[in-house]
Amino acid sequence: MLGRGVWSSVRQGLSRGLSRNVGGWASGEGRKVDIAGIYPPVTTPFTATAEVDYGKLEENLHKLGTFPFRGFVVQGSNGEFPFLTSSERLEVVSRVRQAMSKDKLLLAGSGCESTQATVEMTVSMAQVGADAAIVVTPCYYRGRMSSAALIHHYTKVADLSPIPVVLYSVPANTGLDLPMDAVVTLSQHPNIVGIKDSGGDVTRMGLMVHKTRRQDFQVLAGSAGFLLASYAVGAVGGVCALANVLGAQVCQLERLCLTGQWEDAQKLQHRLIEPNTAVTRRFGIPGLKKTMDWFGYYGGPCRAPLQELSPKDEEALRMDFTSNGWL
Amino acid sequence: MLGRGVWSSVRQGLSRGLSRNVGGWASGEGRKVDIAGIYPPVTTPFTATAEVDYGKLEENLHKLGTFPFRGFVVQGSNGEFPFLTSSERLEVVSRVRQAMSKDKLLLAGSGCESTQATVEMTVSMAQVGADAAIVVTPCYYRGRMSSAALIHHYTKVADLSPIPVVLYSVPANTGLDLPMDAVVTLSQHPNIVGIKDSGGDVTRMGLMVHKTRRQDFQVLAGSAGFLLASYAVGAVGGVCALANVLGAQVCQLERLCLTGQWEDAQKLQHRLIEPNTAVTRRFGIPGLKKTMDWFGYYGGPCRAPLQELSPKDEEALRMDFTSNGWL
Amino acid sequence: MLGRGVWSSVRQGLSRGLSRNVGGWASGEGRKVDIAGIYPPVTTPFTATAEVDYGKLEENLHKLGTFPFRGFVVQGSNGEFPFLTSSERLEVVSRVRQAMSKDKLLLAGSGCESTQATVEMTVSMAQVGADAAIVVTPCYYRGRMSSAALIHHYTKVADLSPIPVVLYSVPANTGLDLPMDAVVTLSQHPNIVGIKDSGGDVTRMGLMVHKTRRQDFQVLAGSAGFLLASYAVGAVGGVCALANVLGAQVCQLERLCLTGQWEDAQKLQHRLIEPNTAVTRRFGIPGLKKTMDWFGYYGGPCRAPLQELSPKDEEALRMDFTSNGWL
Amino acid sequence: MLGRGVWSSVRQGLSRGLSRNVGGWASGEGRKVDIAGIYPPVTTPFTATAEVDYGKLEENLHKLGTFPFRGFVVQGSNGEFPFLTSSERLEVVSRVRQAMSKDKLLLAGSGCESTQATVEMTVSMAQVGADAAIVVTPCYYRGRMSSAALIHHYTKVADLSPIPVVLYSVPANTGLDLPMDAVVTLSQHPNIVGIKDSGGDVTRMGLMVHKTRRQDFQVLAGSAGFLLASYAVGAVGGVCALANVLGAQVCQLERLCLTGQWEDAQKLQHRLIEPNTAVTRRFGIPGLKKTMDWFGYYGGPCRAPLQELSPKDEEALRMDFTSNGWL
Repeated sequence: MLGRGVWSSVRQGLSRGLSRNVGGWASGEGRKVDIAGIYPPVTTPFTATAEVDYGKLEENLHKLGTFPFRGFVVQGSNGEFPFLTSSERLEVVSRVRQAMSKDKLLLAGSGCESTQATVEMTVSMAQVGADAAIVVTPCYYRGRMSSAALIHHYTKVADLSPIPVVLYSVPANTGLDLPMDAVVTLSQHPNIVGIKDSGGDVTRMGLMVHKTRRQDFQVLAGSAGFLLASYAVGAVGGVCALANVLGAQVCQLERLCLTGQWEDAQKLQHRLIEPNTAVTRRFGIPGLKKTMDWFGYYGGPCRAPLQELSPKDEEALRMDFTSNGWL
Repeated sequence: MLGRGVWSSVRQGLSRGLSRNVGGWASGEGRKVDIAGIYPPVTTPFTATAEVDYGKLEENLHKLGTFPFRGFVVQGSNGEFPFLTSSERLEVVSRVRQAMSKDKLLLAGSGCESTQATVEMTVSMAQVGADAAIVVTPCYYRGRMSSAALIHHYTKVADLSPIPVVLYSVPANTGLDLPMDAVVTLSQHPNIVGIKDSGGDVTRMGLMVHKTRRQDFQVLAGSAGFLLASYAVGAVGGVCALANVLGAQVCQLERLCLTGQWEDAQKLQHRLIEPNTAVTRRFGIPGLKKTMDWFGYYGGPCRAPLQELSPKDEEALRMDFTSNGWL
Repeated sequence: MLGRGVWSSVRQGLSRGLSRNVGGWASGEGRKVDIAGIYPPVTTPFTATAEVDYGKLEENLHKLGTFPFRGFVVQGSNGEFPFLTSSERLEVVSRVRQAMSKDKLLLAGSGCESTQATVEMTVSMAQVGADAAIVVTPCYYRGRMSSAALIHHYTKVADLSPIPVVLYSVPANTGLDLPMDAVVTLSQHPNIVGIKDSGGDVTRMGLMVHKTRRQDFQVLAGSAGFLLASYAVGAVGGVCALANVLGAQVCQLERLCLTGQWEDAQKLQHRLIEPNTAVTRRFGIPGLKKTMDWFGYYGGPCRAPLQELSPKDEEALRMDFTSNGWL
Repeated sequence: MLGRGVWSSVRQGLSRGLSRNVGGWASGEGRKVDIAGIYPPVTTPFTATAEVDYGKLEENLHKLGTFPFRGFVVQGSNGEFPFLTSSERLEVVSRVRQAMSKDKLLLAGSGCESTQATVEMTVSMAQVGADAAIVVTPCYYRGRMSSAALIHHYTKVADLSPIPVVLYSVPANTGLDLPMDAVVTLSQHPNIVGIKDSGGDVTRMGLMVHKTRRQDFQVLAGSAGFLLASYAVGAVGGVCALANVLGAQVCQLERLCLTGQWEDAQKLQHRLIEPNTAVTRRFGIPGLKKTMDWFGYYGGPCRAPLQELSPKDEEALRMDFTSNGWL
C-alpha cells in the first residue's frame, strides 16, 4: 500500500490540469491507444523459499520476446498478484519494463479492493513504466457491486490515472461479471480503452463490441480457448495464459484470424482448447508453471496456499498437451 | 404415455433385426444423415381457452416455409412440450409433418424423464413422421445424472429408435450440461448423429467438434446469439428461436458464414444478439410469441403457469427490436 | 394425463358451489386441517423388469405402519413420480390408501408442469383417496417462474382442488426456491395449509413461520438433517426420506423436540445427519432403496436413467450408517 | 504488508520454543480457550474524507461495552478490512484493545490471500493485543482451494500463531465453503479453537459439532438470522452484525437459548430475522452503518467502491426494523 503522498500529488496534478497530457489518454483527435494483439499474462517466478526470482523473470521475458506479441500483461490473475506485497507488485512491473522491448506494450494489473488503493496502485504502475492499467473488478463485497458502484469505481480510477485503463472481468476468480450496462457507460470515458473479458461468453462479447461501436472501445479475449470465436465477433486480441508456453501457436492463430484463413484457424483453435483449459480452469497456475518447465521456461513453485500438482494431475496435464500434438 | 404395445413391438422388432434398416440409421457406408442448416423451433399456438390451435400452427408453418430452412424442430423447449399431453405432442408433430415440405427435415423433441417413456415417445414420433428425434437430458434427478447414467439413457434410446437421435443440452432449463465425455462416447453410436447445444459455451462446442472429428457427429447451435461463433468453431447449423420471427435474417447469417463473408456476418450477428436474447433468456416464450404477433405470425397466449408480458416488459422487448432496426 | 372429463366436472362442481364443502377446506371456524407430524415419503418399488410392484409397496407400508407417523407422503421426489405414468401415479396412491390406517394422513404429490395438468392430477388424487395434495413448483421454465406466475399457479390449483394443498419447494430438484413473498401471499388462501420446504435454509423457514403467523399456515421440514432446527424455529413436522429406514428414530427426534428435551434431541439429531445426507443429496434414491434393503424393507431397483450404486458408493453409504451406530 | 523482520522473529521465537507458552494455546490439560458467547463484528468508522475515525471507533466501543458481549470481532467482513492498509488494520485493533474491557475477548480478522501474509498479519495482530485470530479462507484462486490446500494453509498459520486461531467460512463473500473434511482435520490442531461459519447451513453446523465432538472445537454462528437454530444444534455463540445495533436483544436471545426458554427464544428470533437480513445480505455494510446512525452509534460512510443506500433502499431498510417493532 502506497503512502498518502502519491495520492495527494495525483490530485494536485489533476487540479493543475497536467495529467491529461500524459501517456495513453486520448489525443486531441479522440483516438484511444491501440491495444490490439496477443499478450501472455506473465507468471511471477519464485525461488524455493518463495521469494520473487527476478532473474528467472527476466530470462522468461527474453525467451517470450522472440514472439510477435503486442506486449505483456503483468499481474493478471496468472501473476499471483494477490500474493505479492505492493512493493513486489511494482518491482515486478519495473523489471519487466526493463527486460522487454520498448515497442511492446506493458499492461499492468493494478486492481485492489478499494477505489483509493486502486488509484494509488495505478498511478504507481504508471510511474514504474506501465503503458496501461488492467483493473480487475473489486469483488469481496460482490453483493453490493452494482453497476452504479462499479461505474463509480472505474470512473474514479480512469479520471485519476495517467495511463489508459483496461477493464477486467474474470468471473472464475471474482464471482462477478462486469454488467453490460456498466461496460457500455464506461466505454465512453476517454481514458478507458477496452476490456479484458475472461468469462468466455462470446454472445456477451459480441454485444459489447456492438454496443460500444461508436466508442473506439477494444475487446480482448481473456483466454485462448475462445480466441477464434472472439475474433469472429469483433475482438481485437487476447490475453492468453497459453501464450506463455505455446506463444508461436497463439500468434499464428491470431494471424490466421486476421488474414481470414478461418479453416486453418479452426483446426489450430481446436488443438489449443484442451491445453488451454489445462493451464487455466483445470489445473490453474500450478498447471501453467509446470508446463512452462516442460517448454523451456522457468515455471517453479507457486506461493502458498497454491499447491503443487499431484503426480496424477501432472500426468493428466501432460496428456492434454500430448494428445493434441504439442508434446 | 404410450401403451405397452408400442414398447413390446419395438423390442420384438429389434430382436428380429429389423429396426436397424429403418429411417435415419447409418447406411452401409457408415454415413449419418446430414442435419446441417437452420431450424426454427416452432411454438405451439393455443386458443384463448388454452387448446392447441392446429389451424394457426399450419398457418405459421406455411409462412415459415418460404425461408430456406433445413427443416423444423417441433417440441424443443420453445414448443411448451412439458405442458402438452402425450397425444397432443404426437398430434402436433403429425400436423407439422403434413403442413411442411417433404424435402425439409422434421426434428421432434421426444425427451421424457424416464428412459422407457423416452423410448416410447421416440418410437411414436417416428411413426407420426419425425425424421429425427431431439432428446433433452432428463433433469429432475440432476444430482444423479452422471455421465454413466446419461450414456446409459441415450444409448438405450438410440438403440431402440427407428430414427436418428440428436442429443439436446439446455442448461437454462435443465440445470444440467451434458458432460463432454458423455458426448464423445455417445458420438460413436451409429444412431446418434449430433447435438443441439444451447449452453452458449463455444469453447465447449469447439472441443466437441474436435473430439468427435472422426465420428461424423454434427453440432448445432441452440440459439442465434452465438450462431456466427458456432460456425467459426465448426458447428453446421442452428436451432434458433429467433428464426420464428427473423427467418430471412438468420438464414442470411448462415449463408454469410458458409460463404466466408465474415465481416458482413459479424455486422448481422451483432444486430441479432439483443433481439435473440429478448425472445429467449430475457422474456422467454411469452416474449417470442408476442414478437410473432408483431411479425405477422400467430403467437397467442402460453399455457399457464407461463404469464403474459407486462406492458413494461413488452416495451423493453420492442426496444430490443427497434434499436437494432428490425421494427 | 387425464381426460377432459375430469377437468370439466371439476369446474362444474365449483360453479355449483359444491367443492368447497369437501375434505380439507377450512371449516366455518376458519381452521385449516392439522398436518403436524412426521411423514416418510414412500418410495415406489419396482420389479426387476421395472414394473411397479404393488405387493412390495403394501408390504413396506405395513412395516412402516408400526411407527407413530402422522401419515405418508406419496410421490414426493423420492417416489420417482416423474418416471410414472399418470395412471401409475393414481394407482400407487390408491394402493397406499388401502394399505394404510384410516387415521393417518395421505399426502399425495400432484405437481405437473402445467397448471391445468396439475389441477387435473390434484382432483384425481383426491378421488383415489388423498387427504391433501403436495404440489411441487413447476420448474422447466424456471427463468419465467416469477412470484406472480407461481402465485397464479398455486391459486388456481388451490381454488379447484377438493382437498387442501401443501406447497412444495425443493431447489435441489427444481433449481427454484418458492419466493418468500409468494409463500406469504399464498398462505392466505383458505385451501393452502402449509409448505414442505426441502431447501434446508432455516433462516427462511423461521421467517416463513413468522410472516404467516396470522394465517394458520404450517411449515414442514423437507429432510431429517435439519429437523431439530426446524422445530426450533417453529416448524410442525417433517417429510423425511430417512424415516423410510430409521422411522423409530425420526419419530423419537420429533418427540424429544415436542417435549422440550433439547439436549437429547441434539445428540440424536447429530447421529442422523450423515445417514440422512447419504440417502438424499449424496446417493439419492438409489442410496435410499439400497438402505431399505438393509433395514428389512423392499428397496429394489430404480427406473432408468437412475443407476444402481457402485460397490464403492455402497460401501460409503454403509459407513455413513455404521459410523453413527445404526448398522 | 509487514517487513520480513516480523516473520523472522516469529520463526526464531518458535524455534526457541517460546511462542507455545503464549496466549490461547492449549494448556497442559489440553483445554482450548473458551470463546463461547456473542460478538458484534465492529464496523470501521470513516470520516467524510474516508480516513479512519478512531475517535468514533472508541465512542462506539464504549456504547457497545454496556452489553454482556463475550467480546468483539475486529475486521470481520463488516470491518471493511479489504479496504484498509496493513497499518490501518493493526491500528484499529490496537485502538479497540485500549477502548474495551480487559475481561472481554478481542478476536481479530487476520486473513490475507497468501499463507505468508496471513502468518505475518496474525503475528502482528497478537502483538497489538488480539486474543485470537479469525482467519478467513483465501478465495481469489477458489478453483484451486482444495481441502488439502486449505488444510495446509491453516495448519501453517496455526503453527506459527502465538494466539489461538478461529477458522472463518463466509461463502457470500468468498464464494467458498470451507469443506467439512478440512474442518474436521483442522479441529485436531491444538491452536485451532473453533470456526465462525456464516453460511447459514445448520445441517452442516450440526455435523461439524458432531464430528469434532472429541476435539474441544467451538462453532460460532456467523449471523443472527440463524442464531437460535445454531444453539439448537450445538453452537456456542455467534458473531452477529445485528449486535452492533440491537445488542441487548441479541444477548437476550443468547440467554433464552442457554436457559432453555425455547418458546420465548423463538419469538425473539423471529423478530430479528428481517432486521438481520437487512443489515447483512440485503443492504450490506451501508445498511448496517445507516442503521447504526439511527440507533445512536456512529455509522457514517463506507469506503468506495461501497456506495450509500438510495433513499428507496433506506426506506426498505427502515421498514425491516419498524415492522418488527424495533424502530
